[in-house]
Amino acid sequence: MRVAVVGLGTVGTGVIRLLDANRDLIARRAGRPIEVRAVNARDRNRDRGVDISRFDWVDDMMELARRDDIDVVVELIGGSDGPALALARAALEAGKPLVTANKAMLAHHGLALAGLAEKSGIPLKYEAAVAGGIPVIKGLREGAAANEISRVYGILNGTCNYILTTMEKEGRDFGEVLKEAQELGYAEADPSFDVDGVDAAHKLSILASLAFGTQIDFGSVDIGGIRSVSAADIREAGALGYRIRLVGMAENRPNGLFQRVHPVLVPVQHPLANVDGSLNAVLAEGNFVGSLFFSGRGAGEGPTASAVVADLIDIARDEYGDPFAMQVGQLAQRPKADSGDNVGRVYLRFMVRDKPGVLAEIAAAMRDAGVSIESVIQRGAHEDGSVLLVVVTHDSSESAIAETLRTLSGSDNLLAEPVVMPILD
Amino acid sequence: MRVAVVGLGTVGTGVIRLLDANRDLIARRAGRPIEVRAVNARDRNRDRGVDISRFDWVDDMMELARRDDIDVVVELIGGSDGPALALARAALEAGKPLVTANKAMLAHHGLALAGLAEKSGIPLKYEAAVAGGIPVIKGLREGAAANEISRVYGILNGTCNYILTTMEKEGRDFGEVLKEAQELGYAEADPSFDVDGVDAAHKLSILASLAFGTQIDFGSVDIGGIRSVSAADIREAGALGYRIRLVGMAENRPNGLFQRVHPVLVPVQHPLANVDGSLNAVLAEGNFVGSLFFSGRGAGEGPTASAVVADLIDIARDEYGDPFAMQVGQLAQRPKADSGDNVGRVYLRFMVRDKPGVLAEIAAAMRDAGVSIESVIQRGAHEDGSVLLVVVTHDSSESAIAETLRTLSGSDNLLAEPVVMPILD
Repeated sequence: MRVAVVGLGTVGTGVIRLLDANRDLIARRAGRPIEVRAVNARDRNRDRGVDISRFDWVDDMMELARRDDIDVVVELIGGSDGPALALARAALEAGKPLVTANKAMLAHHGLALAGLAEKSGIPLKYEAAVAGGIPVIKGLREGAAANEISRVYGILNGTCNYILTTMEKEGRDFGEVLKEAQELGYAEADPSFDVDGVDAAHKLSILASLAFGTQIDFGSVDIGGIRSVSAADIREAGALGYRIRLVGMAENRPNGLFQRVHPVLVPVQHPLANVDGSLNAVLAEGNFVGSLFFSGRGAGEGPTASAVVADLIDIARDEYGDPFAMQVGQLAQRPKADSGDNVGRVYLRFMVRDKPGVLAEIAAAMRDAGVSIESVIQRGAHEDGSVLLVVVTHDSSESAIAETLRTLSGSDNLLAEPVVMPILD
Repeated sequence: MRVAVVGLGTVGTGVIRLLDANRDLIARRAGRPIEVRAVNARDRNRDRGVDISRFDWVDDMMELARRDDIDVVVELIGGSDGPALALARAALEAGKPLVTANKAMLAHHGLALAGLAEKSGIPLKYEAAVAGGIPVIKGLREGAAANEISRVYGILNGTCNYILTTMEKEGRDFGEVLKEAQELGYAEADPSFDVDGVDAAHKLSILASLAFGTQIDFGSVDIGGIRSVSAADIREAGALGYRIRLVGMAENRPNGLFQRVHPVLVPVQHPLANVDGSLNAVLAEGNFVGSLFFSGRGAGEGPTASAVVADLIDIARDEYGDPFAMQVGQLAQRPKADSGDNVGRVYLRFMVRDKPGVLAEIAAAMRDAGVSIESVIQRGAHEDGSVLLVVVTHDSSESAIAETLRTLSGSDNLLAEPVVMPILD
């Protein structure tokens, strides 16, 4: 099977290295050899540590969508639109199988692309787009296919998990750890896609579609990132028996589709609490299988290449079908669930002035909104006179929490935006 | 797609219940409805809580392998030979796709059956045979297919894990917890397949074949069960920072295939240490993907039915291929690795007499065999005068450990067979 690789960054280079290293084994498993025939990237001459002179270099990647000596196009350019999307469309329209690792493109255009694949009866595969090397697309699309899935959730961004778990281990604050992660190459120079939750939201919207048989709806994901999580939050959460993780969670509810990426307090004995460093993990809850847990390395050259080549092997074996588990026309369109209806325990952190009446004001706002308090921790004042006040509520609706915060929003006693995190029970 | 279900125990009944409950969703995912057409079981009239009168009852199950109105035969009888094997052979020889949950049959006859499937170009699928609802067959056969896998291991028997984790939580001994598990229906009246490690060994031999591209070799699995694990072992292991789990482990080594089922000391921070109760879990280590971890419910009606129906959906979608990831003729035949070459830390527990010179005798035997001691724990004498002596070694070859035990085997000071467990590092 002759493959064109477009984009020769970390992942593209990894795919070439993998196909070299495991060549014979892959031929046995795929039933035929898989070889790179042609490549394209921005820079032809950059030293990538692999010899690309043995492949056809093409200057115009769009040519690859048409060439008769290419059986599969592998798109590893990235970006939701632009060249990646143009190439994907051209390949599928020309009846050329496509493998991609591009979650942003799928979150925005996945259904349109799946429609093109369906029309031509050819594969569109994307295992590497979510959770790197972990076969969670396959796990949902096929492994759990017999189940009605009520909830799918997990740790979908390795950069955030690395930052949070490093903050946890070393007691350091976000900014400092982010800077170090950037120096180590674990975080991008512009980290906002990762730390603001957008990357995890792209992945979540894809998982939700597969899990529930619903249309991808990236626009309805509520997105929060980890910039507001402080070392103090991690410490207080720890004292209460929780760890803080950036969790993407989707639920198929009677009133609609709930999708959210947000920092969450996870009980220490929960499987997600033990997902450390740059690992990813996904849980799915099915009505017959119960809870399934997958974890592994969610990014990096080796794991991502492993997922891309797994897709190529599936294609070589002729084992593929509808990209989103069913025909695009069968995917249900669901409204966005009102998150105000969410009921659960909530962690609230206030930075307040060290003076009489502050706790009374907060407690009154909660009482007036009908929010019942489970525990309060107040630590002695900082040098600057600010006081950290943590409140854990009993089960409350998020609309009641929002009302509490509205009441307090004008208050002179609050020194910073309160931080709110759901507790996973 | 018209299905015949043979065997209407827990799993067979679960398959019917699942196909009823998730009927529409499955039709959307499979691309066509999946319906049970005919059934066979030992007893027609037993109350199973599902209505089977709507299906054709056949008295002779072998008829199902031939009937034109049956597209797939689902074998849920169990047993490595006998009726299950006769049905499987007849179905595959007649060109009829087969789905089975029968690990014993696959461990003994998997390659012969795969050869029949290959000859007819039809599916033989068995996701439910290993780790119940967890899609680990698919995870290895497809998800990790791009990798050379060096090691696959995990907790493959829910009954043993339930017993060990209950012993751990409640400080009770094996016999007592087994009896309770039998009363609760978690263990069979004849528990030997489970507690002696045979069931886990069946599953391990299947995983090893898929992971390494080697022929199934159940005969070369070293098998040890959990009867010899005492509450005292669990306590001492706990004090050292370990939990005891029955681990099936297979490694593809330069000198051959290593396969073993045995109680093992697992560090508390290892993912397997947190697998509780009747859960199963599998880890696979690939040369590009790194370590993949799958866990979930490894047995029971719902999870097992979920796996059987996932196989049916794959067949309905026409997404299947060689049962053991490559053609049977491509699977390598490997010798059994000599386990004496294994090097690692080892836990040894002796029950000895409370008199001078006992520790000296044991220490001398270890010194003479070249086994170096990391730590020793001796607890005060029991009422009966026996003393528990636990030794943890530094890295040692298993042949040196065996030599130690040979030296000590005649000793008058030992009150029971020493218990030896590898430590997973």
